[in-house]
Amino acid sequence: MIRAKVIGATGYGGVGIIELLLQHPQVKLIALVAREDVGRTISQVYPHLTGFCDLPVLAPDDPRAQAPADVVFCATPDGVGMQMAQDVLDGGARLLDYSGDFRFASAEAYADYATRIGRNPTHASPHLLGRNVYGLSELHRDEIRQAPIVGNPGCFAASCILGLAPAMRAGAIEPLGVICDCKTGVSGAGKKVNASFHYPARYEQMNAYKLAGHQHVCEVEHELSRQAGQDVRVTFTAHVMPVCRGILSTLYGTLARPLTEAEALDLYRDFYRDSPFVRIFDSQAPIGTLHVRGTNFCNLTVSVDQRCRRLRIVSHIDNLMKGQAGSALQNMNIMFGLPETTGLMRPGAYP
Amino acid sequence: MIRAKVIGATGYGGVGIIELLLQHPQVKLIALVAREDVGRTISQVYPHLTGFCDLPVLAPDDPRAQAPADVVFCATPDGVGMQMAQDVLDGGARLLDYSGDFRFASAEAYADYATRIGRNPTHASPHLLGRNVYGLSELHRDEIRQAPIVGNPGCFAASCILGLAPAMRAGAIEPLGVICDCKTGVSGAGKKVNASFHYPARYEQMNAYKLAGHQHVCEVEHELSRQAGQDVRVTFTAHVMPVCRGILSTLYGTLARPLTEAEALDLYRDFYRDSPFVRIFDSQAPIGTLHVRGTNFCNLTVSVDQRCRRLRIVSHIDNLMKGQAGSALQNMNIMFGLPETTGLMRPGAYP
Amino acid sequence: MIRAKVIGATGYGGVGIIELLLQHPQVKLIALVAREDVGRTISQVYPHLTGFCDLPVLAPDDPRAQAPADVVFCATPDGVGMQMAQDVLDGGARLLDYSGDFRFASAEAYADYATRIGRNPTHASPHLLGRNVYGLSELHRDEIRQAPIVGNPGCFAASCILGLAPAMRAGAIEPLGVICDCKTGVSGAGKKVNASFHYPARYEQMNAYKLAGHQHVCEVEHELSRQAGQDVRVTFTAHVMPVCRGILSTLYGTLARPLTEAEALDLYRDFYRDSPFVRIFDSQAPIGTLHVRGTNFCNLTVSVDQRCRRLRIVSHIDNLMKGQAGSALQNMNIMFGLPETTGLMRPGAYP
Amino acid sequence: MIRAKVIGATGYGGVGIIELLLQHPQVKLIALVAREDVGRTISQVYPHLTGFCDLPVLAPDDPRAQAPADVVFCATPDGVGMQMAQDVLDGGARLLDYSGDFRFASAEAYADYATRIGRNPTHASPHLLGRNVYGLSELHRDEIRQAPIVGNPGCFAASCILGLAPAMRAGAIEPLGVICDCKTGVSGAGKKVNASFHYPARYEQMNAYKLAGHQHVCEVEHELSRQAGQDVRVTFTAHVMPVCRGILSTLYGTLARPLTEAEALDLYRDFYRDSPFVRIFDSQAPIGTLHVRGTNFCNLTVSVDQRCRRLRIVSHIDNLMKGQAGSALQNMNIMFGLPETTGLMRPGAYP
Repeated sequence: MIRAKVIGATGYGGVGIIELLLQHPQVKLIALVAREDVGRTISQVYPHLTGFCDLPVLAPDDPRAQAPADVVFCATPDGVGMQMAQDVLDGGARLLDYSGDFRFASAEAYADYATRIGRNPTHASPHLLGRNVYGLSELHRDEIRQAPIVGNPGCFAASCILGLAPAMRAGAIEPLGVICDCKTGVSGAGKKVNASFHYPARYEQMNAYKLAGHQHVCEVEHELSRQAGQDVRVTFTAHVMPVCRGILSTLYGTLARPLTEAEALDLYRDFYRDSPFVRIFDSQAPIGTLHVRGTNFCNLTVSVDQRCRRLRIVSHIDNLMKGQAGSALQNMNIMFGLPETTGLMRPGAYP
Repeated sequence: MIRAKVIGATGYGGVGIIELLLQHPQVKLIALVAREDVGRTISQVYPHLTGFCDLPVLAPDDPRAQAPADVVFCATPDGVGMQMAQDVLDGGARLLDYSGDFRFASAEAYADYATRIGRNPTHASPHLLGRNVYGLSELHRDEIRQAPIVGNPGCFAASCILGLAPAMRAGAIEPLGVICDCKTGVSGAGKKVNASFHYPARYEQMNAYKLAGHQHVCEVEHELSRQAGQDVRVTFTAHVMPVCRGILSTLYGTLARPLTEAEALDLYRDFYRDSPFVRIFDSQAPIGTLHVRGTNFCNLTVSVDQRCRRLRIVSHIDNLMKGQAGSALQNMNIMFGLPETTGLMRPGAYP
Repeated sequence: MIRAKVIGATGYGGVGIIELLLQHPQVKLIALVAREDVGRTISQVYPHLTGFCDLPVLAPDDPRAQAPADVVFCATPDGVGMQMAQDVLDGGARLLDYSGDFRFASAEAYADYATRIGRNPTHASPHLLGRNVYGLSELHRDEIRQAPIVGNPGCFAASCILGLAPAMRAGAIEPLGVICDCKTGVSGAGKKVNASFHYPARYEQMNAYKLAGHQHVCEVEHELSRQAGQDVRVTFTAHVMPVCRGILSTLYGTLARPLTEAEALDLYRDFYRDSPFVRIFDSQAPIGTLHVRGTNFCNLTVSVDQRCRRLRIVSHIDNLMKGQAGSALQNMNIMFGLPETTGLMRPGAYP
Repeated sequence: MIRAKVIGATGYGGVGIIELLLQHPQVKLIALVAREDVGRTISQVYPHLTGFCDLPVLAPDDPRAQAPADVVFCATPDGVGMQMAQDVLDGGARLLDYSGDFRFASAEAYADYATRIGRNPTHASPHLLGRNVYGLSELHRDEIRQAPIVGNPGCFAASCILGLAPAMRAGAIEPLGVICDCKTGVSGAGKKVNASFHYPARYEQMNAYKLAGHQHVCEVEHELSRQAGQDVRVTFTAHVMPVCRGILSTLYGTLARPLTEAEALDLYRDFYRDSPFVRIFDSQAPIGTLHVRGTNFCNLTVSVDQRCRRLRIVSHIDNLMKGQAGSALQNMNIMFGLPETTGLMRPGAYP
């Protein structure tokens, strides 16, 4: 059994991975750590876990939190994982970090990201950069397998990169004409209460936010540039919708050469041939985010607006699954040599 | 492997059991039957099943629909199961029927029910009455084990009976002072579109309905009378809320004798000691229907209003799970000698 | 023009009365007071008011907040209005208080209420008790007309009392068998963020709360006892639903004598003959809370469960209108000799 | 008093204008016409109108439906208004049509539109084309004043055109690089039930639709080309969100010349200086569709992505108000020489 520890266990990212690990045939949860709710059991914090898990929430400095593990999930915000990473490795475990701390492989790339989001541009563990891998499983399986540290992708970023990578790598769209228009459910912002996510302020409310720049752009441009082999620039707009779970990203690229919808479909199907969690649909398919809810799938619809010479991809994920805990478990499976679908291959419940 | 057939496969009750059976370790789905969407695959009808099940939807008279099975789920409305039951039994299968057709053990009881809901009071297969069992697993495990035919409970009825049975059997509340105030999500009414469930007419809409009498009352009174050993009468009010999944039933009974909240809790915990899907909470527990969403649990909170001498139980279920497909699978497990939790014991995904 | 001041202007109760007063033909808003957002304009706090009102939010001790007014709305929680009341009266204004401070006419009744909700039982301005009137317009019009101080009813209480008063006054139901099963939208809890009202925790969530006792029971029992001329006891259950605006209260009383539904309808229609904001419907009427949304109406459906000898009333209001600001304006109209419908008689917008 | 008749009275577009006209100081509703619900009163169809309007729903051929009027609102789908228009004019009334029938001024433009949406390209009353005006009040006030026939804009089109017209007319963005990414609430699709708008299928569902082409593109390109003085091409994506009322359109244009956000704001404020229903906000303003709900406002936020040389406008309307009935009333006010805000200038109710 793989011994797993979850740091930041009481947030949505924490409880998401706990739910999955409890049902995983080869994992044993050994410790849950958080700064809040210390001393309560996780099932007191999350009553739906009653009967499934009665582990206590431990403070970070609790001796029981130091028990040896094989994998540590840092379901924590920016800045936490990079403080703990060396200790995790020293303890013999591998690290799966949810934040931006380990999404970039160099101190320069990290500094660019950190600057854009108003954080200290100096990475706390620069010596570990290079030992980390960007954890979008579909694009980096081989490196993830060996990596001591995996930086789990941002939810918006995962939806955009999966949607655009095939076209970018094939040179089918121009690197400078990309628009990502992303709509997210509220759970992406986590468990912390906020005036904008107070029910009365959110029902019947659709809005754009962070128009001056969202932190995930950096990651999208970085990864797409890698795929394209040249500099990619993206206009990115984030919107919040009165939905709990789901991201719908509508992605636009200017065609670099003539392309029919059928050709585009072939390109995408071929690219994701060996990726069990990406499903490709044509533009007539009557699908939406409800069809990936509770699952680790990314559903992509492919269409071409010939009048305007544009490729248009609609990318659907569950932000808490493929956008967070599901992705993390998929990465863990890869890291430990298991089939990447272990404990993850389920259809969801409709409606 | 248990060979399973689903009749009425394209409704919510059908797709619910399909989702569960696809993940059940000992079942093989062999045929899906419905009157609508014949000729399409089930994953075309329900795109979230893409990659999980590509069985075609067969017409009832399609020869492939007659393939031998071990269990047949009739996820069909009143009047269908009782037409098919003899054929199912003759084919060597056992029958799990979702409707009111087999919830009553005598032609008289059925006639009373049918009359109340405006249907023909004559049962189509009266010779089978007596071979059927009322499928509330927690109350009838032993009979279900042997039964050729199980009549799955109504969703409201399941929530009410589970909430009141312990008090009724113990004689703790009076048989004539019961009120069931039930709030359901919309999915309980099924997949069929309806002006009242059109999104713009339903968001921000709370309403009572069928004030003149709901079909589930009959079943509640019938079963509670059996538990009480005397005639029980219930005032029942059904409400619909802008929720997809969930039933919250607030149940009131007049105390027949002095009872503290602690005693009531003991009574309930004791009653459900061996029922893995019923969880008992005190009146301070901060729980709601979201905590049973996607699961087969019935969560009960127990409280006593001493000033008014009333026991008050709040019963929480997912109407499509414990209220329908989950219950059906639990019954199937019992019928086939499996642990009743097989393929059902999961915590759900929060939020 | 009536000069109006709003204390607690930045909460939902404050902005609700501001919206109404801005459209009232005979009122001029002269000052908005609050502890939060001081220095910003109200349209910066509530952008939908852009172009309608640019008054600044004043601190309570700002000299401009002391400008003379004809009416002061205290849209404030328990404990504030009773501190300010004497000053308001001394300044020549009349007071409309939203809280429990002035809902009871004696120090004893207040102490009972305050004790039940865990507050100091001593009223801060006991000398003013007796000069206040309980502001349920339909039951106390004549006293409201003259009252220097009106205690606006609680939202649950308004829905319950309007629903039960006719039967109670007529002696049609027994004083001890009453159950109020109330379902509210989230806005009733106000603007303040809270883990239970965080969108992801509230969508798909139905729950009962305060099972040990809700503060509004006191007011309901007090007023119904007055109507009945004897002691009334109520079992009260509050529930929150994933709705922004609306209260649906299902009210049960044991018939004290035989009564048909037609007779009950007559009784109710007669009782509310001169009340323009109460509309009576029979049990077949397909109505819900969406049909009173944004309006000051209370819609009542009347039904009788003859099998169980119970009267059942379903009461529908918008908790922020008839349950709060609408009621306050209706009271203000009465206090100043205007038709009680002034600025309030509108159908709402459907859907 | 202006005598008004509503055709298609029982749809959302019909009831929307009825609600507004009932509160308009200078209009008298004289007849309501529809094909469904004939013989019932409008308050039986829409119970929130109880006490406000008891006019019967008349069949189109009912003699009472022919009573003389000053204005006729055709709240009807494509193809109805153009059949009735001549009769309306002959009867001495002016026509406000909600559909595409009179949005184009020539038979050729209409044919282009009709072809794209799969309708007969031949207009039923070609002799009237040229007497009609495109009813986007802010852009065509002077022509609307005199027009016998006004073609009310489509809801998506109104949001897009208002958002892009200033930049297009000023030549600030290029005519060929435009993307309109539009998110609508469900009420835009009307009252008719539909599997996609069934509550359980719509809650938690975000999806794009009509990826092959939406009928409103035609109108957007047509009007923007007029503003730009050259051919404009638009990539248009329609999405439906689990919201009742509201359209959020995120509009992208490639800058034709350097432009700061401050300059863009000035351009927009200047353009809409005399338009009381358009409000301009900078990119930091925390607004969404909830802030225009129930009102006739179009709120625009203006931002510039300098890295990608793009102007980005977020346009917010209530699809049933500025997107339909509100716009229609604003046009009626203009046609009859009233201030265009009459009966329309209200802030809405928050939350």
